[in-house]
Amino acid sequence: MAITITAFERSPDGGKGLARDTRVRWALEEVGQPYEVRLVSFSAMQEPAHLALHPFGQIPTYEDGDLGLFETGAIVFHIAERHAGLFPDDANARARAITWMFAALSTVEPPILELGNARLLEGDKSWTAQRMPLVKDRVHNRLGQLSRRLGDADWLDGAFSAGDLMMVSVLLRLKASGLLDAYPNLSAYLARGEARPAYKRAFEAQWAVNTGKPPTG
Amino acid sequence: MAITITAFERSPDGGKGLARDTRVRWALEEVGQPYEVRLVSFSAMQEPAHLALHPFGQIPTYEDGDLGLFETGAIVFHIAERHAGLFPDDANARARAITWMFAALSTVEPPILELGNARLLEGDKSWTAQRMPLVKDRVHNRLGQLSRRLGDADWLDGAFSAGDLMMVSVLLRLKASGLLDAYPNLSAYLARGEARPAYKRAFEAQWAVNTGKPPTG
Repeated sequence: MAITITAFERSPDGGKGLARDTRVRWALEEVGQPYEVRLVSFSAMQEPAHLALHPFGQIPTYEDGDLGLFETGAIVFHIAERHAGLFPDDANARARAITWMFAALSTVEPPILELGNARLLEGDKSWTAQRMPLVKDRVHNRLGQLSRRLGDADWLDGAFSAGDLMMVSVLLRLKASGLLDAYPNLSAYLARGEARPAYKRAFEAQWAVNTGKPPTG
Repeated sequence: MAITITAFERSPDGGKGLARDTRVRWALEEVGQPYEVRLVSFSAMQEPAHLALHPFGQIPTYEDGDLGLFETGAIVFHIAERHAGLFPDDANARARAITWMFAALSTVEPPILELGNARLLEGDKSWTAQRMPLVKDRVHNRLGQLSRRLGDADWLDGAFSAGDLMMVSVLLRLKASGLLDAYPNLSAYLARGEARPAYKRAFEAQWAVNTGKPPTG
């Protein structure tokens, strides 16, 4: 039975890899599982057929036989649990990898989402220029803590895991902002993630959907 | 070996149950596992000993033998995975319960955190009154979607699970705001969560720490 995921018919980022299907594609590439993609338009995402699969009207979703899942973190977890390559064998190390998945999504990403909202949803508001330093400070607070923990290690806890996949994916949202420039070890961590062959395949696949072209470099 | 968690020596909410140790206490009560609590002051949370356990300088943490975890979602997951009572036996139902855990933390909670930031960190700013409707709209967007999915069911997917524990815990943050009043089924869902004996024991335990008194009702 083929795994099928959903992705934007046309991603708001034009193929820069920031849509969350990239995270799921990356996980599937890391564990070597083939998958099919069903593209969904913005209007179809709000229709009953898609809402039955994803109550919040978003992508990605994951279907495999009679199992339907939504929520990127849960899908990546499911892939990591079922296929070798994203969780360590040792039980305690596995629990710590799961901890980093949750940390990426519920501690590091929320201030980054708030920064995105300030830019995309409030960019034209009178208060945004004055408010932006506060929003950036909240992101820097988390980045500083993460940078201190990572130190000069390659990955967050030993070998690359689903925790790193999720943390790198979250940090990628900041790549264009310049906020990571103050943290050379986080920039290098991001570059290590992007250099993984599985990430490159995932990026290229979503790029092809959004541009109809192979990657330009 | 005893499970030890950390909690605020003095919670910012004064014992209303909104500090995240309540979520972990609730999970431990649901599965019937005894635990010990080590209280941590705000200054101690930023010291090396605590940062070694929790790189973001927060509570709760979880220690059991040589395993140390942070991040509420990961701790509740670990408890649910090791002890019966929070995950269904069926593999697909378990995957869906995990999906609701992630949905609570990474889709429903972020706009609620943003609302909290607007109130607590920007309450004195010139823009806050004008900006607040936008922030509330983002919360309402998620609440409406959640309300439509829940419908008249008792819990999100069959029997009570760790997914409900996390979603109820997230919605509890809105209890005093009045935002839930527009969604009678979500208010009833919240009340069902609060009525669980395990939740009551968890609430009472954190209340006693923060007030030195038994619950007043």
